[in-house]
Amino acid sequence: MKPNFSLRLRVFNLNCWNIPYCSKDRVDRLKRLGDFLNVESFDLALLEEVWSEEDFETLRQKLLPTYPAAHYFRSGIIGSGLCVFSKHPIQELAQHVYTLNGYPYMVHHGDWFCGKAVGLLVLHLSGLVVNAYVTHLHAEYNRQRDIYLAHRVAQAWELAQFIHHTSKKADMILLCGDLNLHPKDLGCRLLKEWTGLQDAYLETQDFQGCEEGCTMVPHNCYVNQQELQPFPFGIRIDYVLYKAVSGVCVSCKTLKTTTGHDPLGGTPLSDHEALMATLCVRHSPPQDSPSLARETAEMPPLVTVLKEACMELGLGLAQAHWWLAFASCVVGGGLLFLVLLCALVAGGDSGQVALLLLGLSVGMVLGAGAVYLFHMQEAKGLWKTQAELQHVLGRAWDAQDMGSRPRPAQLLRQQLDNRAVEQ
Amino acid sequence: MKPNFSLRLRVFNLNCWNIPYCSKDRVDRLKRLGDFLNVESFDLALLEEVWSEEDFETLRQKLLPTYPAAHYFRSGIIGSGLCVFSKHPIQELAQHVYTLNGYPYMVHHGDWFCGKAVGLLVLHLSGLVVNAYVTHLHAEYNRQRDIYLAHRVAQAWELAQFIHHTSKKADMILLCGDLNLHPKDLGCRLLKEWTGLQDAYLETQDFQGCEEGCTMVPHNCYVNQQELQPFPFGIRIDYVLYKAVSGVCVSCKTLKTTTGHDPLGGTPLSDHEALMATLCVRHSPPQDSPSLARETAEMPPLVTVLKEACMELGLGLAQAHWWLAFASCVVGGGLLFLVLLCALVAGGDSGQVALLLLGLSVGMVLGAGAVYLFHMQEAKGLWKTQAELQHVLGRAWDAQDMGSRPRPAQLLRQQLDNRAVEQ
Repeated sequence: MKPNFSLRLRVFNLNCWNIPYCSKDRVDRLKRLGDFLNVESFDLALLEEVWSEEDFETLRQKLLPTYPAAHYFRSGIIGSGLCVFSKHPIQELAQHVYTLNGYPYMVHHGDWFCGKAVGLLVLHLSGLVVNAYVTHLHAEYNRQRDIYLAHRVAQAWELAQFIHHTSKKADMILLCGDLNLHPKDLGCRLLKEWTGLQDAYLETQDFQGCEEGCTMVPHNCYVNQQELQPFPFGIRIDYVLYKAVSGVCVSCKTLKTTTGHDPLGGTPLSDHEALMATLCVRHSPPQDSPSLARETAEMPPLVTVLKEACMELGLGLAQAHWWLAFASCVVGGGLLFLVLLCALVAGGDSGQVALLLLGLSVGMVLGAGAVYLFHMQEAKGLWKTQAELQHVLGRAWDAQDMGSRPRPAQLLRQQLDNRAVEQ
Repeated sequence: MKPNFSLRLRVFNLNCWNIPYCSKDRVDRLKRLGDFLNVESFDLALLEEVWSEEDFETLRQKLLPTYPAAHYFRSGIIGSGLCVFSKHPIQELAQHVYTLNGYPYMVHHGDWFCGKAVGLLVLHLSGLVVNAYVTHLHAEYNRQRDIYLAHRVAQAWELAQFIHHTSKKADMILLCGDLNLHPKDLGCRLLKEWTGLQDAYLETQDFQGCEEGCTMVPHNCYVNQQELQPFPFGIRIDYVLYKAVSGVCVSCKTLKTTTGHDPLGGTPLSDHEALMATLCVRHSPPQDSPSLARETAEMPPLVTVLKEACMELGLGLAQAHWWLAFASCVVGGGLLFLVLLCALVAGGDSGQVALLLLGLSVGMVLGAGAVYLFHMQEAKGLWKTQAELQHVLGRAWDAQDMGSRPRPAQLLRQQLDNRAVEQ
């Protein structure tokens, strides 16, 4: 690479809020989004919540001349809602579906049915390998009593792990998406600490857009005003994050957000604001791998956030165990009803009471059995994540050569073992 | 790295057949496996079908002095059954759970409940980065009428993709496990073609063990003789595969299998035979990346196998669509019964017939609804895999610069689009 090498990368991100039959002005907004993307001609447009593949196909046809490469990431029952449009050929594709993603019986929230995922596309731009990731994490429905917190932390960790393990030979990493995490939330800190990704809003030399970089603002007419009441400026949950891996440095020249209106007139493009970043990639003398550097100098903040995540997953695990116990009791109750039913039938009663009892017991055993199996899977997923975090904590202490001091991973494991025994 | 650099790596792999309450002589076999691993002191022991975490913990305690590092890969409801024991510190860990893994209603086969996965451990040995993978793919229960074929092909592709994307900065890749694939099966060819992995049995300079390298042999007393009737020597479904990525060359000095008996006496260690490989890693002048090389010179065999896999996934997709149609009909029938029930109740009949009808209709709607949702997820998973394969096919033709000839991916896409329209 020449010392005066320079590459400009213009990136667009939007959670499109395109739910068929539910989202207001969907068809019109989609049309205007296509027009806008064609006019602006970004290098890369990364979209979330394009739930219908027909909508994706409509966009693909419309954007084909400007963005010849496109991909829809299929997963779950409904689909991940993630798709990408690129001006440059997509060299490679991959995706990872998050192990934990809410509960199937929370049908009204629907996240479980989507199969939330992270999609990866590898681009070769002017000789550089660019790994671009797009994702959408589980929504936060109640910030005060967030039953999905442990799942979102686990998703943030899986996202960080996926990026960490798949980007080792990339020159530059780009992550866009709706993380459903505020900047100081545990999941966001965990992701940034483990991957070393930088936040375009915090790093940019020129920001234009909503106050505090918010991407859900009260004056967007599609936003539920009540939900945003505690946040007068709105919330920042959509991100453009980036990192230079080797031989290059990346800076964010400009970052813009839409401001609750369509940039070309009309109603907003979505209930979220779009992010538009211009990144500048320049030659830089080779340095030590940042991830290796993190293992020594910058370990304390990583250790703190890993410990916090371990504790949060521990709480999630306790909750999963409570559900396992509850489901076991209901299955037991159902079996008891079956015994009662047998006694009734043996006593000659085969009338309506017996039939009702049969329905009730079968329903209880099957229903609670399914709940039991689901939460068993949840517990395994949380435990797996916790074990990976503990492994990193262990390696961190090994690297710092803490000698005879008890390692935090061991301490945590002990605490959690004790808790498991107590249950 | 010095020109005379040399590293010897001794690896052990076994599908342990450790199913609590089901597998014969489980506790005794586990004890003898621990003794054997301690005596042999391999660098790395990779195990499958250790279904119980208590068994893993027993082994871990026993092997701690010889193998200080160990990890159990948790997933699904039961667990992946995968675990590793290493003489060297495990630097990093990751795992990927396969999107498709059989059917929940095939309870007697049980694979769906396990959450089959691939586990990755990164080791640093004498300055080399070694990525070691362990996996276990969906079992083959009926070779003549294999309803899981599309799932196994999809798993082989996800395995290949996981290795491809996570090993780009490794110096050496090692994959051990029970692939449930014969050497010439589509999944096995797809895996080898996409990753460039070499088969220790085919490459070794010195093989000692079962005829044709088989890892399930008829004279193992735990093997179901009837299942192996068409294969007089047995079948080869467990593998040690390896690849040098950069700056090194890897060769297999020796490969041994157990031969239906415990190597230290007594009954066999499992119904599968163990694999023991001695790999030799040597310095080699840097060459072009093999995966890049594959994109040009070696494309035709890859194209052939990709096309074959696309067709197989298409058949799986057709089957999934059949199930979707069937489940829709049953849900429709259930709803019809509900209407009938309402008519009966409106007519004053609220007796046993009405109750029976209620149970039947609710059962049909819920049961078939669940089947519908599951096969919808299956269809998305198969479609996703097919799209990834088609993308690679497209890139392959681009690389070969085929000019105006129709690209196979386009042709295939057309065929599949036609089929989807027909349904």
